[in-house]
Amino acid sequence: MSWWTIDETHDPARKSWVESANGHSDFPVQNLPYGVFAPAGEAPRIGVAIGDQILDLAACAERGLLPPNVADVCLDDTLNRLLALPIKPRGELRRTISDLLTRTSFRGSLSDAIYPAAECTLHLPARIGDYTDFYVGIHHANNIGRQFRPDNPLLPNYKYVPIGYHGRASSVRPSGEPLVRPKGQRKPPEADTPLFGPSVRLDYELELGVWIGPGNELGDPIAISEAAEHIGGFCLLNDWSARDFQAWEYQPLGPFLAKNFHSTVSSWLVTPEALAPFRLAQPPRPEGDPAPLAYLADVDDQTHGALALTLEVWLSTAKMRDEGLDPVRLSTGPASSMYWTVQQIVTHHASNGCNLQPGDLLGTGTISAPAREGFGSLMELSEGGKRTIELPGGETRTFLEDGDEITLKASAEAPGRATIGFGECRARVLPARS
Amino acid sequence: MSWWTIDETHDPARKSWVESANGHSDFPVQNLPYGVFAPAGEAPRIGVAIGDQILDLAACAERGLLPPNVADVCLDDTLNRLLALPIKPRGELRRTISDLLTRTSFRGSLSDAIYPAAECTLHLPARIGDYTDFYVGIHHANNIGRQFRPDNPLLPNYKYVPIGYHGRASSVRPSGEPLVRPKGQRKPPEADTPLFGPSVRLDYELELGVWIGPGNELGDPIAISEAAEHIGGFCLLNDWSARDFQAWEYQPLGPFLAKNFHSTVSSWLVTPEALAPFRLAQPPRPEGDPAPLAYLADVDDQTHGALALTLEVWLSTAKMRDEGLDPVRLSTGPASSMYWTVQQIVTHHASNGCNLQPGDLLGTGTISAPAREGFGSLMELSEGGKRTIELPGGETRTFLEDGDEITLKASAEAPGRATIGFGECRARVLPARS
Repeated sequence: MSWWTIDETHDPARKSWVESANGHSDFPVQNLPYGVFAPAGEAPRIGVAIGDQILDLAACAERGLLPPNVADVCLDDTLNRLLALPIKPRGELRRTISDLLTRTSFRGSLSDAIYPAAECTLHLPARIGDYTDFYVGIHHANNIGRQFRPDNPLLPNYKYVPIGYHGRASSVRPSGEPLVRPKGQRKPPEADTPLFGPSVRLDYELELGVWIGPGNELGDPIAISEAAEHIGGFCLLNDWSARDFQAWEYQPLGPFLAKNFHSTVSSWLVTPEALAPFRLAQPPRPEGDPAPLAYLADVDDQTHGALALTLEVWLSTAKMRDEGLDPVRLSTGPASSMYWTVQQIVTHHASNGCNLQPGDLLGTGTISAPAREGFGSLMELSEGGKRTIELPGGETRTFLEDGDEITLKASAEAPGRATIGFGECRARVLPARS
Repeated sequence: MSWWTIDETHDPARKSWVESANGHSDFPVQNLPYGVFAPAGEAPRIGVAIGDQILDLAACAERGLLPPNVADVCLDDTLNRLLALPIKPRGELRRTISDLLTRTSFRGSLSDAIYPAAECTLHLPARIGDYTDFYVGIHHANNIGRQFRPDNPLLPNYKYVPIGYHGRASSVRPSGEPLVRPKGQRKPPEADTPLFGPSVRLDYELELGVWIGPGNELGDPIAISEAAEHIGGFCLLNDWSARDFQAWEYQPLGPFLAKNFHSTVSSWLVTPEALAPFRLAQPPRPEGDPAPLAYLADVDDQTHGALALTLEVWLSTAKMRDEGLDPVRLSTGPASSMYWTVQQIVTHHASNGCNLQPGDLLGTGTISAPAREGFGSLMELSEGGKRTIELPGGETRTFLEDGDEITLKASAEAPGRATIGFGECRARVLPARS
């Protein structure tokens, strides 16, 4: 799987002529994530984040600076065709961009193809065909399962089936776009009949998003040994959840209106190539757990199928912002608390012949670490609303209030390697509409 | 809601100069469903079914025969922009097409814009953004619920919440395209661990499909009084299901691989306008059932929110075809056995602000009549595989075998009105791939 290969683009000694990429940045020249951006008053186009700037890839293509076989897809206003590229041309594109941003000979000629990110609008990176959410964070599954089904937190299928369900593609939004508090049905235990109104248990969920690269034809499964080749990129995903609606509606067909009112993704697509130096062995399954069935078992996955990512959740409230207080970190933990690798969820998804398409989005499900400081949702941190979370400035929370802003962050670290980040996945809660 | 208005296009005395439309046909001139078709060797375009012919709407637009404000969307190769039209121009387009196909003065000039349907390929009518499946067939919910949860067939939320879940848009296919028997995990009661392999309980589901017309913005619900205006059309939907996978995977997040390997829709989009003469009062809720919550309650719905449709399921097996035997009808029943109207599922879907888009597809869920002759799936007809169904030629079935072909049909009938049909929703089961 050549996209896991470490090459000169990962060399930690590489510097960019974009100065801001060489200090403390999510986007050093070793990262090179793709996105779709619009300079003020101009049309959206494909770009690459570098420090606090964006390189206009369409301009590079028009100037003949990109490999001829991939230049065309860089002229689109979504990444869908770029995501469909096989590994080889994808790698060539990465090496070319790395050269453009490191060789000082390009500094002058590209000066008008570089934009300050702060002056640009970031769009969704791809037109999402289908969005699927999984449930691979086993500590989250245990924590939540205990609240919804105290006698039966982890169902018998969990350790065989990478549990997933289809979500809503139309309401996935890029970082920065606020969400409206949803209305819906909830049934408090003491009520005889359900009530309809704004959610009173609005929550976030810390997830990793996976962008599908090359797809598969309907009817043709993806072998586990080939799953990595179908992964086009990674992002952060906040799967906003109305816990009160969820508890009332989710049986027997799963979450629906509790989830589909808004989902936020980070705007930059971090490539598998960029993450090559940050592979980890998949944590061994606990003693006594069954081995994955053959179609999900891969030696390669077991030795380096996981990713060395640190995930964080930050909150700022309206009052905190008014008082000039910094956001507070609600949790941090490793992304390795996943019972199934992203390769396994890709293979499972296509195992019945379901066709995945370039630009489809998969969510891992909430990733919680075993201990409280790594819990990935308020439902877990507040123990279903029973435990109060103290905030700077004297406020408390069990669930989200209007004006609250949640920011997810991720960074990949490994000894002797340049740390790379995902950019932010941020959104603020607006009041329910009357 | 003006699309329920009955006008001259519904006049049963109207005849078309396309002779085959005037006899026994699903597509008399009172119907005029839209679709996307390709004449042999030519590009796909928008057409209208008339008898056993198809009128090329793009050709009509190019010749200046359509209202200027809608001609442009008829040049597309999907119905998405046509579906986005408001009611008024949609009605104008229908009246214009009705005139083109009834006035004999157009017979000569349109002779090269009419194609025999049998020589054309039918495509999906729209690019489906999101596909959502509901569960409004209460007899089906009871029948299936009893098998999955004998002690608890209908959960407490059923009579308050129009239960639905997101399905897979990418694997929705037009009538005629065969499906591959899916592989997946199943756990027979006697097995210690699940097995992976071809489904041994493959089933169909008889559903009505609803195509969304004009959409709503994220965050803006659709009032029940306005829901009808967001309905762009109807079709038949076969929600193929692997019952063995479903039983093992569906908890806690709902059906996933048991459903998303293939869904078949009939290729013609029957408009709400065409169905105006076939409205029915929503059947009253049984004594003791709760009234719908206010956001789902509409006087108009109660008086004429349902549709007078008769639904049918037909089966032919490989052996029956070899022996020259006709297909056998497995069931027939009215579409009125729905606990919620299509207007109610549209409003519920958007009640949390979820944005629906033109060309989205909603399924009603399996529509079963109360009695056995109207059961809409083999799971119900065979009582979960316990009861054998006898077929002509001596075969029996509990679930589907390779080579079996299922055809769904629907027709709308009302006294003094021309009967209209939906065309067929047909697909054949291919063996699992090795």
